[in-house]
Amino acid sequence: MIGEFELIKKLTAILKEDTIGDDTAYIKIGDKGLNITCDAFLEDVHFLIHYPPESLGFKAISINVSDIVANGGKPLYGLISLMIPDYIEERFLERIYEGVKAACEFYSLKIVGGNVSKASKLGIDVFLIGEVDRFVSRNGALVGDDVLVTGTLGDSYAGFKLLTSKKAYEEYELRLIERHLRPTARIDYINHIRKYANASMDISDGLSSDLWHIAERSNVVIEINKDKIPISNELKIFASKNHLDPYEIALSGGEDYQLLFSQKKEHFNPFLDNTVIGKVIDKGRALVLMDGKELERKGFDHFKKR
Amino acid sequence: MIGEFELIKKLTAILKEDTIGDDTAYIKIGDKGLNITCDAFLEDVHFLIHYPPESLGFKAISINVSDIVANGGKPLYGLISLMIPDYIEERFLERIYEGVKAACEFYSLKIVGGNVSKASKLGIDVFLIGEVDRFVSRNGALVGDDVLVTGTLGDSYAGFKLLTSKKAYEEYELRLIERHLRPTARIDYINHIRKYANASMDISDGLSSDLWHIAERSNVVIEINKDKIPISNELKIFASKNHLDPYEIALSGGEDYQLLFSQKKEHFNPFLDNTVIGKVIDKGRALVLMDGKELERKGFDHFKKR
Repeated sequence: MIGEFELIKKLTAILKEDTIGDDTAYIKIGDKGLNITCDAFLEDVHFLIHYPPESLGFKAISINVSDIVANGGKPLYGLISLMIPDYIEERFLERIYEGVKAACEFYSLKIVGGNVSKASKLGIDVFLIGEVDRFVSRNGALVGDDVLVTGTLGDSYAGFKLLTSKKAYEEYELRLIERHLRPTARIDYINHIRKYANASMDISDGLSSDLWHIAERSNVVIEINKDKIPISNELKIFASKNHLDPYEIALSGGEDYQLLFSQKKEHFNPFLDNTVIGKVIDKGRALVLMDGKELERKGFDHFKKR
Repeated sequence: MIGEFELIKKLTAILKEDTIGDDTAYIKIGDKGLNITCDAFLEDVHFLIHYPPESLGFKAISINVSDIVANGGKPLYGLISLMIPDYIEERFLERIYEGVKAACEFYSLKIVGGNVSKASKLGIDVFLIGEVDRFVSRNGALVGDDVLVTGTLGDSYAGFKLLTSKKAYEEYELRLIERHLRPTARIDYINHIRKYANASMDISDGLSSDLWHIAERSNVVIEINKDKIPISNELKIFASKNHLDPYEIALSGGEDYQLLFSQKKEHFNPFLDNTVIGKVIDKGRALVLMDGKELERKGFDHFKKR
């Protein structure tokens, strides 16, 4: 099977649409700009059935909010397509919806409908509509821009590894697990992205792969420095105890739902939890360099082995 | 497990939303009214994997267009969430998208994005946005209204039975199969529904069940006559050869994607393929009568046995 991104390209070529390639799609209704997105959250692909059901509902919403925010949108309305296998109890579904409700309150978002369907595995497919004054695409990075990320990277992957490898946890491990199970999308950055970002996306596949997405869509050369990548203390402890490189985890881990964006140097805001990890140094070709060498893409692709 | 409709009620009660209960959800963006919907189309639940892939793409779009139209909307934009198991070849996916493309052209609709995901079974979850000047709900039926359906009913169910029971077909059988595999949503009725319908929905679960939905949401008594239900010649032949009652098939079959609506008597338009099957005769309670007796609900419910 070909990779996920080539597949999307092939299928969208059939529809002859050129609007596909960002986290969300931009549409105009009257004089209002909207961005819309959907992201399926599926058992055994994105989560395991023994995870707390509230966290499944919360995360299914968060991963979609993250896409809306990445393009400068503010989430407004959503629908949920729920796929329910025989072995799921009604109480389990109610607990999923408790998580959905908590997420909707946190993000000021309203679920207005959806549908339920029998299925072989549990699936929560969420559709969101956001309003967006200025749609910030992946394709706007300019030479001279700083390249930034929000928060810290790699925690979610470490949390996932911990979740699937042991049963009793230390305090720092529980914090990593929490970041995997219940990521919060960066709605606090909506205004900043709208005003200042030239290119933006969320980090869902992994930093290395997502940097390449920006480089390719903007047709620019990005150079980053490995030691600038923000790493949490929890991830440092995890990596050290497991003899791993925390920067490698941050580059390839995925599911961080932090933002990756480029902006003019003067727009740096030191009060936010954002970090300059590199710069756009050239245009006319797509390339990502880390400390002077081409960066390998190691992000998540459903259809390829890691 | 409780039934599909009770389940939806329970889950939406958790979110405290009162807007759920129609084929689509109404939202207002600026001064524009929109209706949005999603309907999952899943392998082994809604289709079998040996069906022609083009028909899967076409039908996945049609069933969603049908929901938009049922509430008086005109479909504009869509997203597709594609769930792909290992055993699906790239060519099969391309053929699905050929069907999606044909549907988009037919319905003047644009797919602007979506996502692909690995899954255990094939799934096509479509999300549509329509524009709607006047949202026509299930809850507006008035005493004195005629109750009408478009087209003929029961063909799709007969087609499904033929598809799954034999391999070589006569001409009339192929026409029934075609109606199951590639239903066309009634976009030709958009203006009529917007102007004249007091209550409206599409017939996806089966006429008897869908009549009850209107009766309950409008809190009215509907009386219909069995022999008024429009039956195609193909279904008559099918029923007669198989010693079945074609009216029973029409009442319980489902997946017709015709419209069921109520309107004032004077709005009847004899140039359309619509048929008056009954009348709204009382209000203050929900009841459906057929030829003077309470009509049994025999529509499709995912979570109950037929």
